[in-house]
Amino acid sequence: MIELIVTLDRADPEPLHRQLERALRDAVRGGRLTAGSLLPSTRALAGQAGVSRGIVVEAYEQLAAEGYLVARPGGATRVATAAHPAAARRSAIAPASVDFDFRPGRPDLGLFPREAWLRSVRRALGEAPSERLGYLDGRGVPELRMALADYLDRARGTAADPGDIVICSGFSQGLKLVGQVLHESGARRVAVEDPTQPETGDDLRAIGLEVVPIAVDESGMQVGDLDAADVDAVVVTAAHQYPTGGVLPPERRVALLAWAERSGGLIVEDDYDAEFRYDREPIGALQGLRPGRVVYAGSASKILAPGLRLGWFVVPTALSDRVARAKLVADLGSPAIDQLAFADFLAHGELDRHLRRMRAIYRARRDALLVALARHLPELRPVGASAGLHVLAWLPPDVDEAAVIAAAARAGIRLQGVGPMSGDLGRRVPATGPMRRGGLAFGYGLIHEGAIDAAVERLASVLADIRRVAAEVG
Amino acid sequence: MIELIVTLDRADPEPLHRQLERALRDAVRGGRLTAGSLLPSTRALAGQAGVSRGIVVEAYEQLAAEGYLVARPGGATRVATAAHPAAARRSAIAPASVDFDFRPGRPDLGLFPREAWLRSVRRALGEAPSERLGYLDGRGVPELRMALADYLDRARGTAADPGDIVICSGFSQGLKLVGQVLHESGARRVAVEDPTQPETGDDLRAIGLEVVPIAVDESGMQVGDLDAADVDAVVVTAAHQYPTGGVLPPERRVALLAWAERSGGLIVEDDYDAEFRYDREPIGALQGLRPGRVVYAGSASKILAPGLRLGWFVVPTALSDRVARAKLVADLGSPAIDQLAFADFLAHGELDRHLRRMRAIYRARRDALLVALARHLPELRPVGASAGLHVLAWLPPDVDEAAVIAAAARAGIRLQGVGPMSGDLGRRVPATGPMRRGGLAFGYGLIHEGAIDAAVERLASVLADIRRVAAEVG
Repeated sequence: MIELIVTLDRADPEPLHRQLERALRDAVRGGRLTAGSLLPSTRALAGQAGVSRGIVVEAYEQLAAEGYLVARPGGATRVATAAHPAAARRSAIAPASVDFDFRPGRPDLGLFPREAWLRSVRRALGEAPSERLGYLDGRGVPELRMALADYLDRARGTAADPGDIVICSGFSQGLKLVGQVLHESGARRVAVEDPTQPETGDDLRAIGLEVVPIAVDESGMQVGDLDAADVDAVVVTAAHQYPTGGVLPPERRVALLAWAERSGGLIVEDDYDAEFRYDREPIGALQGLRPGRVVYAGSASKILAPGLRLGWFVVPTALSDRVARAKLVADLGSPAIDQLAFADFLAHGELDRHLRRMRAIYRARRDALLVALARHLPELRPVGASAGLHVLAWLPPDVDEAAVIAAAARAGIRLQGVGPMSGDLGRRVPATGPMRRGGLAFGYGLIHEGAIDAAVERLASVLADIRRVAAEVG
Repeated sequence: MIELIVTLDRADPEPLHRQLERALRDAVRGGRLTAGSLLPSTRALAGQAGVSRGIVVEAYEQLAAEGYLVARPGGATRVATAAHPAAARRSAIAPASVDFDFRPGRPDLGLFPREAWLRSVRRALGEAPSERLGYLDGRGVPELRMALADYLDRARGTAADPGDIVICSGFSQGLKLVGQVLHESGARRVAVEDPTQPETGDDLRAIGLEVVPIAVDESGMQVGDLDAADVDAVVVTAAHQYPTGGVLPPERRVALLAWAERSGGLIVEDDYDAEFRYDREPIGALQGLRPGRVVYAGSASKILAPGLRLGWFVVPTALSDRVARAKLVADLGSPAIDQLAFADFLAHGELDRHLRRMRAIYRARRDALLVALARHLPELRPVGASAGLHVLAWLPPDVDEAAVIAAAARAGIRLQGVGPMSGDLGRRVPATGPMRRGGLAFGYGLIHEGAIDAAVERLASVLADIRRVAAEVG
């Protein structure tokens, strides 16, 4: 017979029998009560703990029902052989610290409009009909689809039917949903820009599609190569090529739409950060020109915060039922309260207000970055429109990109190189042509304006070290 | 040359050139400006609209950059042939109206604790570090995983390591993530209860797993059949079988765990509504007995609202990295603000408070339903523990379930039958044994206590009609 030390607290609102159960369960889990060991009789334990026998009986019965204890006819109760101590809790791993974070494609989260968002949540919770909190439509809540159609038509030049908008959890999920629908319809090959963010190709390959890279020059994708590529669809960052920053010029836009008409192919327009244009207004979306051949894809990840996990795809009417169905199969729809809050946020002009504020801030950071690069690293060649959340700067041909990234990381500077975004994306080999040289993407979403000069100065000394070592070795 | 009627509003904060662009873009889209047609010169349009010529130039340039217009060298501007009128907006379809809604598995959304949830959102937005709004971990925010481990260990008897919890968007997504990981590890066959919710089998089949139904009796899954079924995993509603309402007794729990140990199989414990137990405290989770062999699956869909799209899977340590990775691939993680709000909601005891309130309400509805069934439909046989959000009642053997459901729908009563949840779930044929008869699942989440008697009385007259017609025909 084992000795049980059980402390019950009568002041605790938790009933005594539950306290007793918890103590016994923990003892089994913690290994203090081992499998097969005999428990005190209910009478003995009741006496010891100073409670009525009924409480002990209730606790034993509960734990027997749960499988921790086995009550034998005749009265003896033992710890079940099935019971088993839990693994110790694992501790969290602390992230590595960084002095200067230039990772691209990330907005300044410290400037997320928390107050305005909270006001929108309050209004949404105050006004939404109860059924919005129930099982959802694969397209998303109608309030948000209406508000987005208005916003996108006004700010992005789309021709968006709220009935053809599918709310998803960001570009990556939406692309996979569209890709699945295309794959089920017989599509096999999809063109992507080279370079571009590698996740785009990964997402497409994961659903069985073949990824065909199309080279990018300073004006974005070389759309003339599409015919020879023999693809069923193309993913394009027309308003602001990622990561080179080019803007697709009118003749290429026309040629791209003509390709889609001629081939029956689909254009997926990844409009990831077009709202951030600093020298003029952003180029309107391709989708507005050919809603039947273009999927417009936007998200909150750059303009608000990735943690919202909110994306919106405006899908050609012929496909929208199937994409909405795929969304339903994937996760039964995106959460309702954020959708309702974002609808309110749009309708109250809060997004416009936030974008106006952020444009001024990002533009100042961009300018500071370009000044610092010109001062400390004149051998780098920054390219791209005055737009977005990063600047791509090409390295001199004799400097190895990966070596710079690694040395910068050791010096407390986090950067992303263009190499992993380049070439045959499956094999990650460098492309030919102007992209053969390395390049650094300097994001300015996470770094304050005042820190940029010091960061670039430190990077310049990292580069100088690399060249000195290379010269000594060579 | 076409006539353009453009009205610009100087009081509008939108700049005049943007107003003009929008007007022109809409005219192209709406088909008023057809492809190829010649636009007025910038001078003529400026005069007509009463604005400076620069504004018209700016608007034409923007629309040319977007591809709506084509500016020819020499000055004439035409509507591009690529431009194309948008499809008319489609109107929403109104849902059919229902007098009495007995659909099972749905909570009362009118009683969602909006005020308390808003307080939690406010605290979460006030306290969360900025990085929580960034790109997310596949497991979910640590605050929620800690709060859930505490809650689940206390209320559901789990042994949950916060490091092994994966936040997902509900049971369906989580099951698919676990299923994918199992499939990649070579699993091919998964047992499910028969009857059960058909989506479980659908989700498993969608990822290439073979679904093996195991018959259920009044005590839940007949786990003795698992050895012969030769499966790699089993999905079980141990605390409250769906839809029959049985509770897996201790000896079956032990046998189920023994099967898992012996075969190396995995148990997925779908703990969908165990918090709603009315006659005693809920049976603790199987997971607490064998954390290494059981995936515990819970969600907010029954205890709060499906629209939150929040689920939590406590996964064996050996699998949790891969499940978290699968979540990241699926959608880059569930949204952050709801996760943070729910963590706060749990930590402030709001879920306990809500559950106490809802238990009293659902229990009263359940009692009213049983009284009404006994009074108006004594030939039905209600079964299952005093728990959950529905009662299953078996029909007499001579009554066709589908006919009752259809006739009830015509009479304004929405019900779900056990037939579509039964048998070989791929083929949807009725099982053998006691499940051969039809059954009706009466959910009471959506119907108020005061309406239950009238609803059951009306259903009784529907049944009487069916039997009278059957007797006349027979």
